[in-house]
Amino acid sequence: MSRLSSQIAESANKVNKFIETVVDLDSEPKVLYNAARHIIDAGGKRLRPFLVLKTCKLVGGNEEDALATAASLEMLHTFTLLHDDIMDQDEKRRGVPSVHTKWGVPIAIVAGDLLFAKVYEAITKYTDSNRVKPKRILQVMQEVSEATIVLCEGQTRDMMFECKETVSEAEYFKMIEGKTAALFEVSARCGGLLGGATKSQVKRLGEFGHYSGIAFQVIDDVLALTADEKVLKKPVGNDIREGKRTLMVVYALKKASARQKKQILETLGNKDASAEQIKETISLIDSLGAITYAKKLADRYIKKAKKALARFPDCDDKEDLINLADLIFDRQH
Amino acid sequence: MSRLSSQIAESANKVNKFIETVVDLDSEPKVLYNAARHIIDAGGKRLRPFLVLKTCKLVGGNEEDALATAASLEMLHTFTLLHDDIMDQDEKRRGVPSVHTKWGVPIAIVAGDLLFAKVYEAITKYTDSNRVKPKRILQVMQEVSEATIVLCEGQTRDMMFECKETVSEAEYFKMIEGKTAALFEVSARCGGLLGGATKSQVKRLGEFGHYSGIAFQVIDDVLALTADEKVLKKPVGNDIREGKRTLMVVYALKKASARQKKQILETLGNKDASAEQIKETISLIDSLGAITYAKKLADRYIKKAKKALARFPDCDDKEDLINLADLIFDRQH
Repeated sequence: MSRLSSQIAESANKVNKFIETVVDLDSEPKVLYNAARHIIDAGGKRLRPFLVLKTCKLVGGNEEDALATAASLEMLHTFTLLHDDIMDQDEKRRGVPSVHTKWGVPIAIVAGDLLFAKVYEAITKYTDSNRVKPKRILQVMQEVSEATIVLCEGQTRDMMFECKETVSEAEYFKMIEGKTAALFEVSARCGGLLGGATKSQVKRLGEFGHYSGIAFQVIDDVLALTADEKVLKKPVGNDIREGKRTLMVVYALKKASARQKKQILETLGNKDASAEQIKETISLIDSLGAITYAKKLADRYIKKAKKALARFPDCDDKEDLINLADLIFDRQH
Repeated sequence: MSRLSSQIAESANKVNKFIETVVDLDSEPKVLYNAARHIIDAGGKRLRPFLVLKTCKLVGGNEEDALATAASLEMLHTFTLLHDDIMDQDEKRRGVPSVHTKWGVPIAIVAGDLLFAKVYEAITKYTDSNRVKPKRILQVMQEVSEATIVLCEGQTRDMMFECKETVSEAEYFKMIEGKTAALFEVSARCGGLLGGATKSQVKRLGEFGHYSGIAFQVIDDVLALTADEKVLKKPVGNDIREGKRTLMVVYALKKASARQKKQILETLGNKDASAEQIKETISLIDSLGAITYAKKLADRYIKKAKKALARFPDCDDKEDLINLADLIFDRQH
């Protein structure tokens, strides 16, 4: 295992233990706590918490001071997954049934709400205000709240796209800035804040998070069309069936001939599309150069992310963050 | 208008203006912000914010310092209404269609999430940390989060009751402690905290909020069976149709003969029950003494609430809180 992978695994362990204490399966009513833990326990890479802990260390802070916030950002992420799965009617997540599939929509809503409340409980209760100034903790909470607002706006835009025939690339980027980049950005900023970073350091860390977040989402969308289903742990082509306007769909629709456009639009958002039809549409999108284009753009954002770190002095933590950016680009799931 | 009513109206005005700024209808995407404001704009008594502002004043604080938290607790309350209406499949709220009825479940979920995020944004952004110590603000946020957790637990219990034949009075009280009392309690505690209350004052204010909250819910349940439909702004007897285990249902089922029990259980949770059947069941519940019993219990909790204020020196603000407790008992909707 590379140094980065073993570090990610180590930080995931700490974060998991923290979450297991804060969202305790023995709490009552048990169904609520089981539902809240379900997707957390099913896996996940814990990249957002890793980003919090790593950026805290990069600016000379103590990881322990950032642990509650790191774990909270994973809970925040999971809360959005629970609610998004209801909205998108996704039946699987991380290889297991989604929460609403297993327990029904009402429990999935309230389990998401619980995780969201736990975010703030954990930060206020477990960040040591003798070590981190209360004003800094308040700033962290404000930034987390603002990021969540941007996230809600992004999720709404994503849903609205499904009813629109034409989505521009600019609209697509505005949407994923909300849906994904905001959370990566706030993770990196909060790590910095908790580690005692200066304003300008916080800004640069935020840029690193922002650009890696955009690349992460673009690659996520690429993998949703091209990955091995067993590795992906959800059906390949789901995005097409749900009518998601990913960068590739946006690009392909722009490049397509009238006949090709018709074929794509007939499959997009068509819940009854056959596996064969989905496969053909993915091939068509690929042949229009959309997948190559998306990868090229993701690569450009990864480069921007790395550039944001340029003025930090060279050290192991900086190298780890650079490797993290590469991992985001190169991952297989 | 009594002094209390005009004070409630005045504080509601301030709170509404604050919310209109924080949840701005001109923000994008407009559908999200319109959905988030829908139930707030449809009315409501703003009792929770009033409790925050009044308790702040009672301990000698400045109302302005508590305004952001007061408005936030109304946003928190509204967020739970949006999500509860989805879970309970309620089509109307405050005389208007519920958010999911008007915009669909996905928008109602995300609009609720937005309001919840706005709670924390508003408290961190608009509480002046030069006037209120950052540690106090953090404590307010921790208490709000803990109350929300209890709320999620209460809502889950409420849903679970619908599948249970026997619910005990103790279980009912545990449920409404979460669903309603927790928010009244935290409102009164936070007002105190922001006004500079001592630990013991905060505790007593919390008791006042807790007991009035229980009385509020019991009376709410009574009104849902007995009020004038036009005043209530939702169908009378809805709780019966939805199978809600209110105190009256719990009591009536305990007192009923086998035949009466059968009649109640046949109507309870029966979505196809006719208006006539609902009316007969309410009469039966009433004839078993359940409504009288519920009112008596509510009265007992109002007395407990008032008693919690005994050790505060007599003053106008204390009298207003006592009148508020009476209003909670005597209200017609």
